[in-house]
Amino acid sequence: MSDVIDTTLRSALRHHAIDRFNADYADVLDQRRFAEWPECFVPEARYRVQARENAERGLPLCLLNFESQAMMRDRIVGATQTIYHAPYYTRHVIAPARITHDGDGTPDDPVRAEANYAVFRTKPSATSEVYQVGRYIDAFVITEGGWKLLERRCVYDSEMVLNSLIYPV
Amino acid sequence: MSDVIDTTLRSALRHHAIDRFNADYADVLDQRRFAEWPECFVPEARYRVQARENAERGLPLCLLNFESQAMMRDRIVGATQTIYHAPYYTRHVIAPARITHDGDGTPDDPVRAEANYAVFRTKPSATSEVYQVGRYIDAFVITEGGWKLLERRCVYDSEMVLNSLIYPV
Amino acid sequence: MSDVIDTTLRSALRHHAIDRFNADYADVLDQRRFAEWPECFVPEARYRVQARENAERGLPLCLLNFESQAMMRDRIVGATQTIYHAPYYTRHVIAPARITHDGDGTPDDPVRAEANYAVFRTKPSATSEVYQVGRYIDAFVITEGGWKLLERRCVYDSEMVLNSLIYPV
Repeated sequence: MSDVIDTTLRSALRHHAIDRFNADYADVLDQRRFAEWPECFVPEARYRVQARENAERGLPLCLLNFESQAMMRDRIVGATQTIYHAPYYTRHVIAPARITHDGDGTPDDPVRAEANYAVFRTKPSATSEVYQVGRYIDAFVITEGGWKLLERRCVYDSEMVLNSLIYPV
Repeated sequence: MSDVIDTTLRSALRHHAIDRFNADYADVLDQRRFAEWPECFVPEARYRVQARENAERGLPLCLLNFESQAMMRDRIVGATQTIYHAPYYTRHVIAPARITHDGDGTPDDPVRAEANYAVFRTKPSATSEVYQVGRYIDAFVITEGGWKLLERRCVYDSEMVLNSLIYPV
Repeated sequence: MSDVIDTTLRSALRHHAIDRFNADYADVLDQRRFAEWPECFVPEARYRVQARENAERGLPLCLLNFESQAMMRDRIVGATQTIYHAPYYTRHVIAPARITHDGDGTPDDPVRAEANYAVFRTKPSATSEVYQVGRYIDAFVITEGGWKLLERRCVYDSEMVLNSLIYPV
């Protein structure tokens, strides 16, 4: 095999690993295995859901902003046991990712990747509708348990604040 | 190449094969080459379209339930030659799959995979709309003609019965 | 590694390259880096956006029809500096591609591929909506700058002429 193929191969394997991660991540949320969601992250990870307008202007306001895995676990307890809300299903369709920095996968040099997503919402006795579209901006690290998120920013296109964003995206 | 890469490579190649299959499958339906659709399956294959609520509760009711390739062929004859219905186009956007069991590809040990999908419908003189979102739950076997479905379950999120599901999903 | 794996590997690497290209292409448009869009093409490339009905009947009418990279650059100047229109964001979710002809990547024998896409539009103070769904029908060539489009046809499902297609798809 030529060197070109070796380089491309490394790129393809990384791409595969991230796409595979995203498919598993979507499954955790869509199948409502919410307790597993914080396990997609390392303990010191950050997770944010932010409108595109704010993200592009560097403004700090976020819909959700968790600065550790512990905060994520807290939110899941709230979302599943405390918050009163109308039930809905979600379905994530995440496009193949693009690696923007092929780091070594340590916290000092994570693999950086992005992926466009569309999340569809289905309420009881209603048809499915577009809920949120946007872009994941991610930093991944490799751990004994496989690839985990060191950071995930969900930058969504709609300026409207969704008053019913209960579950993570 | 290290052993780690060999293992990852096998995983990546399987992933590639399933994504490739799903892209071809979508093309068969979206380009209305319906006569080719049963050929995506082996003769003894099963195909079901079922609401998530029923699937999760283990209830048997399905919108479509075909227990062999022959039943699929029969449906295609009905859909294309018999059933009176308003015409519509479909467009499948299927996310990268995740392999849930890396079997050897025989009927006794198929490769099991899942993929989220969104199907958009376009009626004449109308804009495109979300038609159905859900998850393929699949078992694949390898044949002389490449990978084929031994089973495909399409579990869709909306509880509403779509009164115009004419073509397979 | 067996010959089967070598063949599959080549196919997987090509697939990876095209999916990677499409993710970068989507990013250029969705992040509104419009000046970079013509750079996704070679100088002699063609770009068309055409309704499915016309495409299938072999009719020539297109919504957009650019016969060179220079025409694309002209359109971008028009869209970003001249045309008066309501602002909107786009978000592309492009499914994994399928290679329909594994050429050598020269202009005489390009790699041909197709991919289903959904483009979502978000206007200020509004929710995101389905804007256009369809299929990319592509010819790719390899250049010093990586894979580039020799031709991209965007065949969309809706017969309705979108009166606000300002940016490329």
